[in-house]
Amino acid sequence: MEFDLIHRYFAPLGLTKSAEQAAIDGTDIGIGDDGAVLSIPAGQQLVVVTDTLVSGVHFPENTSAYDIAWKALAVNLSDLAAMGATPFAYSLGLSLPLECASDEEWMQDFVQGFAGLVKSTGLPIALVGGDTTRSKTLTLTVSAKGLVGNGQAVLRSGAQSGDLIAVTGVLGEGALGLQVAFGNIDSELTAEQKQTALNALNRPQPQLALGMCLKQIANSAIDISDGLLQDLGHIIKSSTKRQVVLGKTVQLGAKIFLEKIPLSSGMQQLFASKVSWSLALSGGDDYQLCMTVSPDKLTELKLRADELGVEIAVIGEVTDGAGIKTYLDGKLVQQTEAGFQHF
Amino acid sequence: MEFDLIHRYFAPLGLTKSAEQAAIDGTDIGIGDDGAVLSIPAGQQLVVVTDTLVSGVHFPENTSAYDIAWKALAVNLSDLAAMGATPFAYSLGLSLPLECASDEEWMQDFVQGFAGLVKSTGLPIALVGGDTTRSKTLTLTVSAKGLVGNGQAVLRSGAQSGDLIAVTGVLGEGALGLQVAFGNIDSELTAEQKQTALNALNRPQPQLALGMCLKQIANSAIDISDGLLQDLGHIIKSSTKRQVVLGKTVQLGAKIFLEKIPLSSGMQQLFASKVSWSLALSGGDDYQLCMTVSPDKLTELKLRADELGVEIAVIGEVTDGAGIKTYLDGKLVQQTEAGFQHF
Repeated sequence: MEFDLIHRYFAPLGLTKSAEQAAIDGTDIGIGDDGAVLSIPAGQQLVVVTDTLVSGVHFPENTSAYDIAWKALAVNLSDLAAMGATPFAYSLGLSLPLECASDEEWMQDFVQGFAGLVKSTGLPIALVGGDTTRSKTLTLTVSAKGLVGNGQAVLRSGAQSGDLIAVTGVLGEGALGLQVAFGNIDSELTAEQKQTALNALNRPQPQLALGMCLKQIANSAIDISDGLLQDLGHIIKSSTKRQVVLGKTVQLGAKIFLEKIPLSSGMQQLFASKVSWSLALSGGDDYQLCMTVSPDKLTELKLRADELGVEIAVIGEVTDGAGIKTYLDGKLVQQTEAGFQHF
Repeated sequence: MEFDLIHRYFAPLGLTKSAEQAAIDGTDIGIGDDGAVLSIPAGQQLVVVTDTLVSGVHFPENTSAYDIAWKALAVNLSDLAAMGATPFAYSLGLSLPLECASDEEWMQDFVQGFAGLVKSTGLPIALVGGDTTRSKTLTLTVSAKGLVGNGQAVLRSGAQSGDLIAVTGVLGEGALGLQVAFGNIDSELTAEQKQTALNALNRPQPQLALGMCLKQIANSAIDISDGLLQDLGHIIKSSTKRQVVLGKTVQLGAKIFLEKIPLSSGMQQLFASKVSWSLALSGGDDYQLCMTVSPDKLTELKLRADELGVEIAVIGEVTDGAGIKTYLDGKLVQQTEAGFQHF
């Protein structure tokens, strides 16, 4: 099954030359041998990211094949964006039920999901191999490869006390989309608001163009996949650890100003009735970038974002002292089961 | 769950330095950021291979955690061996049931399976990231990375008419092991023979050392994972395609001399009672190398194999003319449902 599937469906996603033609020409080899053979330009490092999506865990079981493929690659490209890397290749470990593999329309739609996302990035990103197996549970592991200039990767560990915390786009929209998909939120939103939320859930657009500008601008970055609080927590933890390695005793923390968190019109409408920040802060599935930048770099960041048509919001700052503290209109608040409450 | 698991169990499999220390030192970054950052030495190309194993499909559901991990990495390293590449890193997409993830002993055993195989290779091969998710079906996608000198990868497409066909080790032993594991073969073999077969199934040893010598010796190579006939078929098909691209009209084929196929003592004992070559030719799970070499390179191949303690058998030759033909004691035979029959 594997061999047929790869050649029939996936070949158009690969490098334009066949493995045999590439062998003759001495160019990179993609699909068609035991492995891909890829040249890394001098002065560049390889960045490798890996994400796995499982049906029923990471997307509802009735998600379209197109959206499943789009999302599986998008979450990987989002990781590369957060490293400041330029993606150029990906491999796919695909385990799928026989009813998918034998459904021509499903398979074509699946392949088009990868092709659609790649086209939207404007970058030549090629499928360079993988493995297709049968399984009761539809499972995709994408491992994407990018390039950065030597020593230019943007890391989690570079945050400094006094850095501003900025995010791209709006937060919580993917989590809102999941609630819409499950039918938990319906009449509260307009059809357009619901569609916007579903698009954020199913077809996240990785912030690659801005990511590629970050190396000269940001001290640290991460992509928000598990919710702002958790992912910003990784930046704070890793940056503190780096300070410790450097022999400093600085424990870093963060302040977040809730009213500055960018929200879609749908989310704003919901907030008028339900004061809960949990979707925006902990919902996950954002695939936006969270960056920390020195205050003197903010103008440059905003300039770059403007050029690219990317919305940027400054939502807080990196502080001395442990923990991430959330403020609403100047007052310290904390998250509880019922939402955010003043102390 | 992901973050805890990765740090608690998998950290010892990674690069020796933490991501934060590596960031300070300017060395490669493994686990601990959005992605790994890896330096590729000048003059080398990156080789990427990807294989997925699914519980109940690629290994019996009662396989030990150690053996599952060993095999998942081994089948990838076997692909790298067939390319002539030196492995240096791998990433892991792991989907596992909660009863595995929450079982400390299972997780430790699983990690030791990777560590055990890496140790047996004598090479520094580091886990450089991945993703851990829950799933009803235990599924592993390993994507391994190796290095070859520029233009030095050994490909499927280089076979020439007149090449000798050689294989490492014995064939059919993994497939025999599967029959032993399922209890289909029992009293026919000694306890030692059964154990040898189970080891071949559960802990295949990729032929890395010989693979790394092949670039000066072999015209083509593949690792035998789907059975000799199918994998040799890939060499013949790909090499014919290359001839066509070069504007030649040569259709390649192969002759296999069945009596020369290397078999374990267990397989030989079975063959005394049941004349069926299906395990050795089509059983799969061999993870031996199948190479084609110009006759004037055979002495060099045997010398290298001897130095490394690897058994080599010449089992046939590449011919003009389509198809793979099998001969037994000089007579053309063909595989049927009941085994091999004379024409």
